[in-house]
Amino acid sequence: MILESFMDSMLPAIETELQQVVARLDEPSTRTFHEMLTYHMGWNGEGTGQEATGKRIRPLLVLLTCAARGADWRRALPAAACIELIHNFSLAHDDIQDGSELRRGRITVWKKWGMAQAINVGDALFILAHLALLETKDDYPTEVILHFGEIIDKACLALSSGQFLDISYEKRAALTVEDYWIMVSRKTAALLSACTQIGALLGGADEAIQKNYHNFGHYLGLAFQVQDDYLGIWGNLALTGKSTESDLLAGKKTLPVLYGLTKNGPFAHRWAEGIIHAEEVVQLSEQLAGEGAKLYTQETANQMTDLALQSLRTADPQGAAGDALFDLANTLLNRKA
Amino acid sequence: MILESFMDSMLPAIETELQQVVARLDEPSTRTFHEMLTYHMGWNGEGTGQEATGKRIRPLLVLLTCAARGADWRRALPAAACIELIHNFSLAHDDIQDGSELRRGRITVWKKWGMAQAINVGDALFILAHLALLETKDDYPTEVILHFGEIIDKACLALSSGQFLDISYEKRAALTVEDYWIMVSRKTAALLSACTQIGALLGGADEAIQKNYHNFGHYLGLAFQVQDDYLGIWGNLALTGKSTESDLLAGKKTLPVLYGLTKNGPFAHRWAEGIIHAEEVVQLSEQLAGEGAKLYTQETANQMTDLALQSLRTADPQGAAGDALFDLANTLLNRKA
Repeated sequence: MILESFMDSMLPAIETELQQVVARLDEPSTRTFHEMLTYHMGWNGEGTGQEATGKRIRPLLVLLTCAARGADWRRALPAAACIELIHNFSLAHDDIQDGSELRRGRITVWKKWGMAQAINVGDALFILAHLALLETKDDYPTEVILHFGEIIDKACLALSSGQFLDISYEKRAALTVEDYWIMVSRKTAALLSACTQIGALLGGADEAIQKNYHNFGHYLGLAFQVQDDYLGIWGNLALTGKSTESDLLAGKKTLPVLYGLTKNGPFAHRWAEGIIHAEEVVQLSEQLAGEGAKLYTQETANQMTDLALQSLRTADPQGAAGDALFDLANTLLNRKA
Repeated sequence: MILESFMDSMLPAIETELQQVVARLDEPSTRTFHEMLTYHMGWNGEGTGQEATGKRIRPLLVLLTCAARGADWRRALPAAACIELIHNFSLAHDDIQDGSELRRGRITVWKKWGMAQAINVGDALFILAHLALLETKDDYPTEVILHFGEIIDKACLALSSGQFLDISYEKRAALTVEDYWIMVSRKTAALLSACTQIGALLGGADEAIQKNYHNFGHYLGLAFQVQDDYLGIWGNLALTGKSTESDLLAGKKTLPVLYGLTKNGPFAHRWAEGIIHAEEVVQLSEQLAGEGAKLYTQETANQMTDLALQSLRTADPQGAAGDALFDLANTLLNRKA
């Protein structure tokens, strides 16, 4: 697959770039701080490797988009690092906010070094992301870099508002499908649309083509999230053996749940009664499917997937990198677990 | 006093600018989020007014420095807002990290809305600061704005490292006076030196003059911190009536304490025995003074004050704004409580 050959050259270059940016903290007085960041990035401590680093989807999207405009993706490496650091800043703070003790199978930073230092780790990643952005200054016109800054900081504000909404929704009883889209557009889609727009910007695309790439990233994010919601209830992990993985147990207000609540049928009545137990999960997910939520969620995911691929076709990515971009989109949108 | 007349015109302009930046979140879905930020900034909720907003020293320094170069300070308002938002971001996160329930006499954001949303509030302030920075783009050459970004993000990295050190020091037994300077240079002085350097940059100063202003802010920060340490043990609040305000009770490793520990005398022995009680405070502060720490701290504060004023004289600020800058420095450095 053409995507794999790009990944073979891009992924190591992304790691090297990221490590160079984070190395700003690698000095005697802040060595332990540096260690906290490199642990969070997946480079040291227990279980390092791709499981620990994550898939680096966002920097890959930046570089492939840039290359699909016929530009040299190596010059865009600091930009790719910037976005991955922003993503990791949000993960570090999310873990504290959600009280998550594990991230990609490893103990989270706040659990390992305490909440105070974990807030700091997130802050430092955000700052380093901005310093990485400024490192592009010898390679691009200054106007391009300021535009880059504007795209990324607006995406960050959306991310932060999306996180505000996500936390607020936990305590709100009356939530609509519309509330869901507002939150998900910000929390999941905003950074992905920034990736593809920035890749296009650094590839020399005009505003119209940037907009197409932006839309591609946006719908890719929405499709991915809706599919995640689907798998969280009807995926293999959620239904077979590990029903502890079901979003129903966690009480998450995902798209199928919000759809089910509008039906005001047996699912909604059971949901209103409070916490769902592991032994109910299979029966309740069937009930929810029976009320139409499974079909609705699948159709919505398909719709968003179509919009993503349509936007990408309109953007008209070029050459082998363009093919790789379609490959990446299809890989992300066809996952089964 | 000339400073007051500048404050009369600058302070309301700073508030208006800050409110405009934060208003980016003033839309239906994020109204409560906006409220959290405006509460933290001191504009709504109980006890608003100058007590609640703080003194806005940092934006004043930016604007006065800019004006003392003969430039129009109104054009620098977004830059001033940027720095004040950075300062407030760090306060919002500090309050969580320190578990402080009060800030300027008001309940802190984390205490009022929970830790998860307070992390978000800090993040949003930080992001808005960067969006404010980009708002200067119509008024200055793009190279100047990128230089501004570099100064501010490097200062933020210093701030975050300083916070890392401050938290680490709480648990470290063997601390030296040198460790103290490393931490304080970052946690207190870095943002102040960024203020004065940025004011000079936007005022059109060359690198050499920017450096002088940078030094002014740096030593101003150190002098202020050392004086704060002095007052935390021998100030009126610490010694009379409210001995609960003494830094000795809180076990803070301030400069006089670290000096006292190097003497390895009665003060150091008592410190090693653990938590100090309110009824010991007066006697112990006299003991510490007897061992030379009071004189040492006062002399160090004087030394840093001299360096600050000397750097300012070298920077050679012009006109009424230049006089106001000396006024501001003297006001900050002569406080008694």
